[in-house]
Amino acid sequence: MCPGSFDPATKGHIDIVERTARLYDEVIVAVLVNPSKAGLFTPEERISMLRECLVACPNIRVTSFDGLLVDFCRSNGAEVVVKGLRAVSDFDYELQMAQMNHGLAGVETLFIATNPLYSFLSSSLIKDVAKWGGDVSDHVPDIIGAKLADRLDDRGRAML
Amino acid sequence: MCPGSFDPATKGHIDIVERTARLYDEVIVAVLVNPSKAGLFTPEERISMLRECLVACPNIRVTSFDGLLVDFCRSNGAEVVVKGLRAVSDFDYELQMAQMNHGLAGVETLFIATNPLYSFLSSSLIKDVAKWGGDVSDHVPDIIGAKLADRLDDRGRAML
Amino acid sequence: MCPGSFDPATKGHIDIVERTARLYDEVIVAVLVNPSKAGLFTPEERISMLRECLVACPNIRVTSFDGLLVDFCRSNGAEVVVKGLRAVSDFDYELQMAQMNHGLAGVETLFIATNPLYSFLSSSLIKDVAKWGGDVSDHVPDIIGAKLADRLDDRGRAML
Amino acid sequence: MCPGSFDPATKGHIDIVERTARLYDEVIVAVLVNPSKAGLFTPEERISMLRECLVACPNIRVTSFDGLLVDFCRSNGAEVVVKGLRAVSDFDYELQMAQMNHGLAGVETLFIATNPLYSFLSSSLIKDVAKWGGDVSDHVPDIIGAKLADRLDDRGRAML
Amino acid sequence: MCPGSFDPATKGHIDIVERTARLYDEVIVAVLVNPSKAGLFTPEERISMLRECLVACPNIRVTSFDGLLVDFCRSNGAEVVVKGLRAVSDFDYELQMAQMNHGLAGVETLFIATNPLYSFLSSSLIKDVAKWGGDVSDHVPDIIGAKLADRLDDRGRAML
Amino acid sequence: MCPGSFDPATKGHIDIVERTARLYDEVIVAVLVNPSKAGLFTPEERISMLRECLVACPNIRVTSFDGLLVDFCRSNGAEVVVKGLRAVSDFDYELQMAQMNHGLAGVETLFIATNPLYSFLSSSLIKDVAKWGGDVSDHVPDIIGAKLADRLDDRGRAML
Repeated sequence: MCPGSFDPATKGHIDIVERTARLYDEVIVAVLVNPSKAGLFTPEERISMLRECLVACPNIRVTSFDGLLVDFCRSNGAEVVVKGLRAVSDFDYELQMAQMNHGLAGVETLFIATNPLYSFLSSSLIKDVAKWGGDVSDHVPDIIGAKLADRLDDRGRAML
Repeated sequence: MCPGSFDPATKGHIDIVERTARLYDEVIVAVLVNPSKAGLFTPEERISMLRECLVACPNIRVTSFDGLLVDFCRSNGAEVVVKGLRAVSDFDYELQMAQMNHGLAGVETLFIATNPLYSFLSSSLIKDVAKWGGDVSDHVPDIIGAKLADRLDDRGRAML
Repeated sequence: MCPGSFDPATKGHIDIVERTARLYDEVIVAVLVNPSKAGLFTPEERISMLRECLVACPNIRVTSFDGLLVDFCRSNGAEVVVKGLRAVSDFDYELQMAQMNHGLAGVETLFIATNPLYSFLSSSLIKDVAKWGGDVSDHVPDIIGAKLADRLDDRGRAML
Repeated sequence: MCPGSFDPATKGHIDIVERTARLYDEVIVAVLVNPSKAGLFTPEERISMLRECLVACPNIRVTSFDGLLVDFCRSNGAEVVVKGLRAVSDFDYELQMAQMNHGLAGVETLFIATNPLYSFLSSSLIKDVAKWGGDVSDHVPDIIGAKLADRLDDRGRAML
Repeated sequence: MCPGSFDPATKGHIDIVERTARLYDEVIVAVLVNPSKAGLFTPEERISMLRECLVACPNIRVTSFDGLLVDFCRSNGAEVVVKGLRAVSDFDYELQMAQMNHGLAGVETLFIATNPLYSFLSSSLIKDVAKWGGDVSDHVPDIIGAKLADRLDDRGRAML
Repeated sequence: MCPGSFDPATKGHIDIVERTARLYDEVIVAVLVNPSKAGLFTPEERISMLRECLVACPNIRVTSFDGLLVDFCRSNGAEVVVKGLRAVSDFDYELQMAQMNHGLAGVETLFIATNPLYSFLSSSLIKDVAKWGGDVSDHVPDIIGAKLADRLDDRGRAML
């Protein structure tokens, strides 16, 4: 199970998911639906973009969930959560959640080191750059770069 | 002086306060009233829950405050603030506040290491878990677990 | 180029800018205009206060910008961004932005260690203290301390 | 593959290895032989103690290695290294090694959060405590506690 | 109880001890005797220098200890250890020791934020600077600065 | 001034020095001679390798120094030290040294973010890998890779 907001997915996210898919027979990429916070893309759009990016991996299924991750793991028979670790600032909060999830339901969280090339990326940083016309083609898959350009064009105007 | 939001108190908070009460003749647990942010529980509810949890310690007084902690210390004759440190992510901000408070009024802040068993707990993580029906009985005192269940039942419905 | 929100500038900010001005022939202090977040002071007020504080340094120009910092650097011929580093919690996010800016436009970010005396200061901590009548004269230049007192008097009332 | 010095293994180490053994069909616990640094126990003693502690897990094999971990992984057909992460101070060095190993041989390192109960343990801290007669029975398996008492009794005399 | 190596004491150490002496009726400054590592000054010299620096505080007693700190606390009736925290790199190891000591003997460790002015000092950094003739008068008490100059003159020659 | 041990230089070091050479008219790369610790390469060998790697940059001078960096800066008229920052574990110690050097002689230290591609490299990690025949051609310049292979072949035998 690879959970996240993926609003939108970066090349760092895709790298983690693809490496996970080489380690497990079946991988579920789970987009968190947060009813109290609208993203730039709807959960459906995020799922659709992820599916396009990951089309070459037949053992990856992309879906969404709300509520507790451990409940979603249980109902899908997933016993392991895999997450990327980029930097120390991720570390404490991720560890808290991993220990809580282990305590709640025995679900293990395994952390993979993010590829150094993508270690400085985050979805929000990429949105900040793209909003002002910065080139993010090194940081997101082409499919997502195109959608981001379309979307931000609309919002960009509204902002000015 | 043990200040905090305590919305609600976790077993980690209670552990810090009880250990402080073994080190000092008199301890004030001070619930911060933040007029610009409504919590899940009102300050009065938080005080009432803390009093129930700490009823066995006669040298602990629970109250609330707003404004600067150093002013509240001064008006109560408290010369020391005691806080729990869980993890590195707490560290920098706590150090900033401690140095500011020392500069403003000579008030010393003493940090205690949180019990490892509770080092991954935070009030907000517990609310996230409880909101979706997760079992938090290992993480909060029974009194608070019951109140949390009642409260979140109301809000949970509203959320869906 | 020394960018920031400067809402308001602290003695820590002024120290970084003055030290930068001893290292470079020309320094631009750039106040970020964030249309989606109103500050305590308007960008114009922040610029005016910074100019007063830095009047003794003829090689410093104070201005504002919006959009991407790298675009503003390019249009001003600035090849280097200089920033203060206070503590570990600054570190990861600053590194992310530095690596993004280097990738986007070859702009280098140089970090200077904040003077230890000011290492625990932040604009928001100072506003919290000043709002409740705490003495911040050790932490901000006199010019800014006076403006802060005026401004917070207005807001302080509204808050109670 | 669970590599380490294990001089001696703590309850934290055993917990990580047992949890790994629930996630994989076959686990190799690999004691690093460091010719330039004699430990308290010989590699053979460490292997023997680990085997006793892990006797209940039939899918765990304990052995030793020297040289590069990635070579040892390759020669054993292991594609994944699993390690415990305790605290931020572990983090940077572990990440460096993980990224180096991934670059050298495509070997993935997966990190598990150490059980909070054992998050403050290290082999060297335990040896320091045991050397002076401190009780480490909460921190190491009984088998190892007994061996530690024997061994340190010898050394302890020599030390005084 | 304020334990440490104090080889030699810095102004940061003295500041922590003096602030502790304002909070407690009786303070023991305990110089750790490490038989396996000779320092620049002998334990007796360190004690003598500390006594001179702290002569104005009648409630401070300076002594040495070896073995486990918790045993020394118990034999002196000390229930609290007080230590300075400078920076994140201190944090993890100090937390480990605090949690171990709490588990071993119920001894509490309280951490105080080091004065920002001295937050970048360490005994070893000061010895490195003094060894090559750097001016450390801002960083150590005068008494210690003089002893350091004498001592390093001897060693300095030997080094070249 | 770019100081370091450079035993040997990695691609990360070369990247920092070359970027510094684009920002300043003249750059001195200064190899620290540490009489109390023999490295894998002598200072003369390190200088020679650095000169070969940096031959394309006419404004870089490579030399060695002992004693205090600030004295060496003063005697060379260098007012700025430039260093790479890789990760949080570098941060605290580098900040300590920067603040000490600023206090001793007004020398400013500017930190540059290491290229993410090289953020996990260190000279000692590379020596560990090379010693056992691991491929470090992605991590050190070719010139240094060749010297490393020669040198470690000698030592490698001695080690077994």
